[in-house]
Amino acid sequence: MTANTKTRNGVNVEALFGALDAVKAQPEAAKFQFRATNEWVKGTHSRSRIHDFFGLGQELAHRDAHEFNADHPEQLTGTDLAPTPVEYLLHALAACITAGIGNIASARGIDLTRVRSTVTGDIDLVGLLGLDDSVRNGYQRIDVRLVIEGDAGAEELRGVVSRSIARSAVYDMLTKGTSVTVQVDVE
Amino acid sequence: MTANTKTRNGVNVEALFGALDAVKAQPEAAKFQFRATNEWVKGTHSRSRIHDFFGLGQELAHRDAHEFNADHPEQLTGTDLAPTPVEYLLHALAACITAGIGNIASARGIDLTRVRSTVTGDIDLVGLLGLDDSVRNGYQRIDVRLVIEGDAGAEELRGVVSRSIARSAVYDMLTKGTSVTVQVDVE
Repeated sequence: MTANTKTRNGVNVEALFGALDAVKAQPEAAKFQFRATNEWVKGTHSRSRIHDFFGLGQELAHRDAHEFNADHPEQLTGTDLAPTPVEYLLHALAACITAGIGNIASARGIDLTRVRSTVTGDIDLVGLLGLDDSVRNGYQRIDVRLVIEGDAGAEELRGVVSRSIARSAVYDMLTKGTSVTVQVDVE
Repeated sequence: MTANTKTRNGVNVEALFGALDAVKAQPEAAKFQFRATNEWVKGTHSRSRIHDFFGLGQELAHRDAHEFNADHPEQLTGTDLAPTPVEYLLHALAACITAGIGNIASARGIDLTRVRSTVTGDIDLVGLLGLDDSVRNGYQRIDVRLVIEGDAGAEELRGVVSRSIARSAVYDMLTKGTSVTVQVDVE
């Protein structure tokens, strides 16, 4: 472990602690809303746009707007133009745990050299296809295999991963569930 | 509603029913595994790759490999190179419901002209930041506002949306939770 520096692993540690202090002083600033708009293209193909969000008490936006396609593979009657929605979910989980590891390692003065994960989700489509109501629609299990390398002992590195999982927004929602409302308007 | 045709809304309806019959005849074929690998880049920035998957009893792959970056915005100590993991989750939810609508409308002989949704997720970062254990890490609520337009009555179109939600893999996981295991290796 090297001496504490302002930036570690690409994380501005002063800014990280500054953000924590700012939120402690003004908890309302921590209320964020993230958003995506999705437009059906054809068949199982749709496209989402992600740009603006709310936080720190004001409307904010990413520097760039981002667009993502989703589709089903040909084996599932799609046109295979993009990954499936359930694959994006695996990406979200891996990226959430990994971002937390970046921040937490930096706050703890650990220089990381590698974080790599493989996430798999097992799904039995007889549920989703409505052929067997005893089989759930979603993944029956998700497994993450994560490799971490950095200038700290194995237990310290494992501690960083554990803390990241304990504070991961996506892990929390996937393991505990969350409230989803759907409002439908017919045009 | 027009007469039933082989392809509707870009969905090959014959192939859709054929897939259902194939799975009924051989339920093992419906066991799929989806995968993503993620590599940390720097700070809160990571990149996932999505390509191969398992299904129909064999190793399969998307025609193309797809890569997606994730990052935090600058307001959350990131470099804002890409959407956050929790925004990808909103995309996954919208795209899953929309793909289902495409398939179900087609199976029911309804021609769609528009499906558009806005998904918002409200999150209080005092949870994720570890400042208040009574506040959850993930979204406290997700709200979907969906507009559908097609050549069927309002109740029929609402019925398509309801069925899609009832069979959505991502909606199922987000509302009910799922099992996630994490295995950590230190290099």
